[in-house]
Amino acid sequence: MKKLIIASTSTIHGGTYLDYLLPALEVHFKTCNELLFIPYARPGGISHDDYTVNVRAAFAKINKSVKGLHEFADPITAIQNAEGIFTGGGNTFLLVTQLYENKVMEILAETVKKGTPYLGSSAGSNITGISMQTTNDMPIIYPPSFTTLGLIPFNLNPHYLDPDLQSKHMGETRETRIKEFHAFNSTPVLGLREGSWLEVTGETIILKGELSARLFRQNQTPEELAAGSDLSWIK
Amino acid sequence: MKKLIIASTSTIHGGTYLDYLLPALEVHFKTCNELLFIPYARPGGISHDDYTVNVRAAFAKINKSVKGLHEFADPITAIQNAEGIFTGGGNTFLLVTQLYENKVMEILAETVKKGTPYLGSSAGSNITGISMQTTNDMPIIYPPSFTTLGLIPFNLNPHYLDPDLQSKHMGETRETRIKEFHAFNSTPVLGLREGSWLEVTGETIILKGELSARLFRQNQTPEELAAGSDLSWIK
Repeated sequence: MKKLIIASTSTIHGGTYLDYLLPALEVHFKTCNELLFIPYARPGGISHDDYTVNVRAAFAKINKSVKGLHEFADPITAIQNAEGIFTGGGNTFLLVTQLYENKVMEILAETVKKGTPYLGSSAGSNITGISMQTTNDMPIIYPPSFTTLGLIPFNLNPHYLDPDLQSKHMGETRETRIKEFHAFNSTPVLGLREGSWLEVTGETIILKGELSARLFRQNQTPEELAAGSDLSWIK
Repeated sequence: MKKLIIASTSTIHGGTYLDYLLPALEVHFKTCNELLFIPYARPGGISHDDYTVNVRAAFAKINKSVKGLHEFADPITAIQNAEGIFTGGGNTFLLVTQLYENKVMEILAETVKKGTPYLGSSAGSNITGISMQTTNDMPIIYPPSFTTLGLIPFNLNPHYLDPDLQSKHMGETRETRIKEFHAFNSTPVLGLREGSWLEVTGETIILKGELSARLFRQNQTPEELAAGSDLSWIK
């Protein structure tokens, strides 16, 4: 049975890395002593090693050890044998490119479908959807495909940001960008605000955290879904 | 001799479509009675026809007629025969995909290099760089390549936005995103603020408008370049 925590962000304003999620992660990863960390998204270009060191420090607080996927000679076996998996944020184009280049996109999807507990934040959450086409990231590298894990039957927009009505900036709002996506794609998009996460247990998807999420569907008015809602109906 | 106006945005806060640029466009397109408009970027998913109607209304103010590239049976010949060309903003992924699918990316570069006056705004400016990899847009469609026209020897980030120091949002700033680009690419990136444009005459590139632009180079501290600067040295 699938078990995922899909977080909008790793860090909320004024907090430290993953701290707001640690109580939930203690439950989520209760059967795991060691987590496999996928550092491919490299926020700000940080190295795989440095990124893994940061993640290791956060999980030490709940007594989990962490190994980086880049430390294994065979990434496929590493994923298949993992007790639990965390994919960190950063650049989604880079993450997806690396998952394809290391031939682990499909195996990661299969492994999580079989029940290995998974945590994603930001880019690591984006890839749980149908495609990475509603990422906010810059296309710093050309991936072989935009198709992602498909562990949930819709797309995500992490770090969802409401339009700033005071702004004099004329660039597109997040909502305008998602509307452009829906001019060409029918996949629903969930705007997940910072501090929100999805808890996926089998086919049940619950919105956690204190904030509502904003659902965008093709040719429909966007709607706010309250914290605590069951989102299993979205497809 | 190349003649380009490369604008950060079509519209500045409180203004109407292209109005702040019309005096410069009157000079830039002085030899043209009719402009060829490339509507492929479709902001907000607007149709090619509707987009062309809006552009036609703006250019009527300086007595230029406008035809949309989609109105021609043969887009290659339409580009080669154009008196002047304008590529409007919208989604850069869509624009680049359509330019490749209609087999006009290369012919557009060749035609502008030969001296056909060109105007780009936003996505239409992005494509004048080496690649579209510093766009702000959402990857709503998968283009066959991220390589663009290469009419200037660097990349652009249109609608450049300074970090909001008051913000509690933890998503990446524009500067962080460009830094991620430079973790993997050496092409310089010019952050062009709204209201700024580049005037390209042959190999000379001048920063126009009232604002400075922000130059990002790999492994170097970003620098502000004053309005009116000659940017021909950037490569």
